[in-house]
Amino acid sequence: MLTETTETRIAELGLQLPPPARPGAEYVPSKRIGNLLFLSGQGPIRDGVPLVVGQVGGEVTLEEGIEAARQATLNALAVIKAAVGSLDLVEEIIQVRGFVNSAPGFFLQPQVMNGTSELLVAVFGERGRHVRCALGTSSLPHNIPVEIEMIVALRPD
Amino acid sequence: MLTETTETRIAELGLQLPPPARPGAEYVPSKRIGNLLFLSGQGPIRDGVPLVVGQVGGEVTLEEGIEAARQATLNALAVIKAAVGSLDLVEEIIQVRGFVNSAPGFFLQPQVMNGTSELLVAVFGERGRHVRCALGTSSLPHNIPVEIEMIVALRPD
Amino acid sequence: MLTETTETRIAELGLQLPPPARPGAEYVPSKRIGNLLFLSGQGPIRDGVPLVVGQVGGEVTLEEGIEAARQATLNALAVIKAAVGSLDLVEEIIQVRGFVNSAPGFFLQPQVMNGTSELLVAVFGERGRHVRCALGTSSLPHNIPVEIEMIVALRPD
Repeated sequence: MLTETTETRIAELGLQLPPPARPGAEYVPSKRIGNLLFLSGQGPIRDGVPLVVGQVGGEVTLEEGIEAARQATLNALAVIKAAVGSLDLVEEIIQVRGFVNSAPGFFLQPQVMNGTSELLVAVFGERGRHVRCALGTSSLPHNIPVEIEMIVALRPD
Repeated sequence: MLTETTETRIAELGLQLPPPARPGAEYVPSKRIGNLLFLSGQGPIRDGVPLVVGQVGGEVTLEEGIEAARQATLNALAVIKAAVGSLDLVEEIIQVRGFVNSAPGFFLQPQVMNGTSELLVAVFGERGRHVRCALGTSSLPHNIPVEIEMIVALRPD
Repeated sequence: MLTETTETRIAELGLQLPPPARPGAEYVPSKRIGNLLFLSGQGPIRDGVPLVVGQVGGEVTLEEGIEAARQATLNALAVIKAAVGSLDLVEEIIQVRGFVNSAPGFFLQPQVMNGTSELLVAVFGERGRHVRCALGTSSLPHNIPVEIEMIVALRPD
């Protein structure tokens, strides 16, 4: 592979891959089993702190929730790159599960998670289309507004 | 395979397979990796609208919650059929995860999810027995009472 | 394999493997697909009853939540042993997902789940390091404070 086409695409979108998060406890950011890569939950951390905290539909607006989902997605991509060396080795995104820290009466979790889904398709094209679950919850670690999980299929070595 | 035995069984149970839901965003209803089929989250949608909305143990009764879990399961079966052509190609149901939109103090999520588990065993027999997680949450998309996920093993081609 | 080295390690930690829980409905405690073992959700049940009930950060203290996560983990190990005969057949722990029944304003779900992560590494060493998702929720079955899920890789037969 001569060029990092996926990272070029990320740059074209005006985005930047962050450094991958390092878990602060006895777990790992990703784990590869055959050609499947499982990722730990990713939050909207940028430069070591959450972009925003609180419940979407409460202290956090829908727009901020979508931006948080995008940032969590960038963090997931950084974890994939750290695990396998290049995002070009992604065969496809299999599954995304998103938990949205939701104020009572907030039911637009799918719109929040579109922040993730649309970014994945913008970056990977058809390979980025995934199975998705969008869920609401009442609390997340550090009061982050969104936490996402991902399972990725990798190209054979 | 000469007859659609699984669909015959569904008809014998007095049930009908709905048309599969089409995601309204950049994701897909199912994704096959080898002989595993991952499904997107399924809600109790019938004819394009939720059977019932609200929290189980609140506006939604336990009985309505169970019925919602059954409808979400039928929708999951419709997705499987759309993906692979016939429910007879299901080798076994591996995993079901159910999120129940729960009123404060409602702890009968397993009874709600029995709506799914019992239907799967009624349809597939022993092949329908699965690993299960029943969880409560405070909110779900569109205020649906139940959302389920599924991983299915398919027969080799 | 001549000795049950993993169970010896559990005994050295002063812990005891409980009898595996039997689901009370139409699902199974675990399911093997190839060398992957999927587990049903596990709670902090000991001798048939929850160690403690309620929301962590509310009626349940952080310390009790951590102890609940450890007990749920022991129950998961018991399920693995019942499924494959010996914990020595665990190649590695792939993924842990933990749902913490959380009082409003409780954001220390990762600390609760460290009860699981640290126990897995104490028992299995590096093989016990896993991908993790720590999530908060507003209610769980029987009002248990923690529910965990696990996917395990098994050694080839």
